[in-house]
Amino acid sequence: MPALSSNPARPAAVVLLSGGLDSATTLAIAQASGYACHCLTVDYGQRHRAEINAAANLVRTLGADEHRVMQVQLGDFGGSALTDARIAVPTDGVAGGIPVTYVPARNTIMLALALAWAEVLPSGDIFVGVNAVDYSGYPDCRPEFIKAFEEMANLATKIAVEGTRLRIRAPLIGMSKAEIIRRGSELGVDFSLTVSCYQANDVGQACGVCDSCRLRRAGFSAAGIPDPTRYIG
Amino acid sequence: MPALSSNPARPAAVVLLSGGLDSATTLAIAQASGYACHCLTVDYGQRHRAEINAAANLVRTLGADEHRVMQVQLGDFGGSALTDARIAVPTDGVAGGIPVTYVPARNTIMLALALAWAEVLPSGDIFVGVNAVDYSGYPDCRPEFIKAFEEMANLATKIAVEGTRLRIRAPLIGMSKAEIIRRGSELGVDFSLTVSCYQANDVGQACGVCDSCRLRRAGFSAAGIPDPTRYIG
Repeated sequence: MPALSSNPARPAAVVLLSGGLDSATTLAIAQASGYACHCLTVDYGQRHRAEINAAANLVRTLGADEHRVMQVQLGDFGGSALTDARIAVPTDGVAGGIPVTYVPARNTIMLALALAWAEVLPSGDIFVGVNAVDYSGYPDCRPEFIKAFEEMANLATKIAVEGTRLRIRAPLIGMSKAEIIRRGSELGVDFSLTVSCYQANDVGQACGVCDSCRLRRAGFSAAGIPDPTRYIG
Repeated sequence: MPALSSNPARPAAVVLLSGGLDSATTLAIAQASGYACHCLTVDYGQRHRAEINAAANLVRTLGADEHRVMQVQLGDFGGSALTDARIAVPTDGVAGGIPVTYVPARNTIMLALALAWAEVLPSGDIFVGVNAVDYSGYPDCRPEFIKAFEEMANLATKIAVEGTRLRIRAPLIGMSKAEIIRRGSELGVDFSLTVSCYQANDVGQACGVCDSCRLRRAGFSAAGIPDPTRYIG
């Protein structure tokens, strides 16, 4: 851990926090690793506000140091079922290939914003809850993407030129959904606060049938942990 | 050129357009190369609106296909003289090192947004007016950064997974400011419309003493082309 913080025993980290199960567990891992966590939620025009409220509740219950919500209107570009209401969220089960819920360049944009904040804090560590095992086939969740972003970040920034090695930390990347749920539970994450559903309603109830709901439900089942998700109807 | 557009003879490109001299020349080069240019201006909370107005005027006079202005409040993070009014813009001449006008992760963020738009258009070509010769020492203007971003982009995106090789095109990267001005002039860029000054006033008049003004003025002088910049006072 780089001794960048004013308190070297507790260095600063930026944690991307969507309000879902994976990023909640990632925040808990960063907290347990001794980082002062500065959480960034990106409001990119997704279908519902529920996950942004979930992020705020997670920050409070997990005791992170700071939370910021940043607006980026990716809906202006569209091209995804999550940012264009005219494209339906698939509910027939997880299929092969990259689904229409893929949001163009989303993780690149979120990591870029986190990188800006990391430079200012300063912090050498950015946590992101991407996962390449039980996931939706998004290219920007793969380890080779994370590695390439890290390389780029170390060429892009003043903080790197001045000697800090930036690290993109993706502690969940090789874990199954069940393993993530077990680890989060051990660390005290209240998963009832998290919202994974692509089309949750305004109070955070989940549809139960989108890819994200299916992966989450199967994860709780495989972990042998009761599913606290509130489903619609 | 990849034949991605509905008109294969005129493929689409995303062009990052700040409204300055370099990005104006970059747009002119992309137009002259036969691309249908979709220009993206990022309103990131910079000190003045003049360069965003300049971008709109350039799009009109150079005849680009489309122009979008996207808001990203990098001022929330601060850490730069361009996004935090409490940090003064240096006016004593171009010094060594990375100056306080460096905006953390700015080019990474702008290229990430351009990448999102490129996926949706679709387009395999993103133009950016970075320059590593007569420049301000920003790490995210160096060729090694552009190369690393391109590598990352080709791992991040659906469009790349599906077979399009994304290219970050930085045609000015090895040119002096004088060469950029000569090339822009040949291509008909009206430099009186461009705003390079870090602290221009609302009608686009330049201070004449910030690093950007100094590099620009020296460029016109070296190119032997009359400087059309409107200076304050």
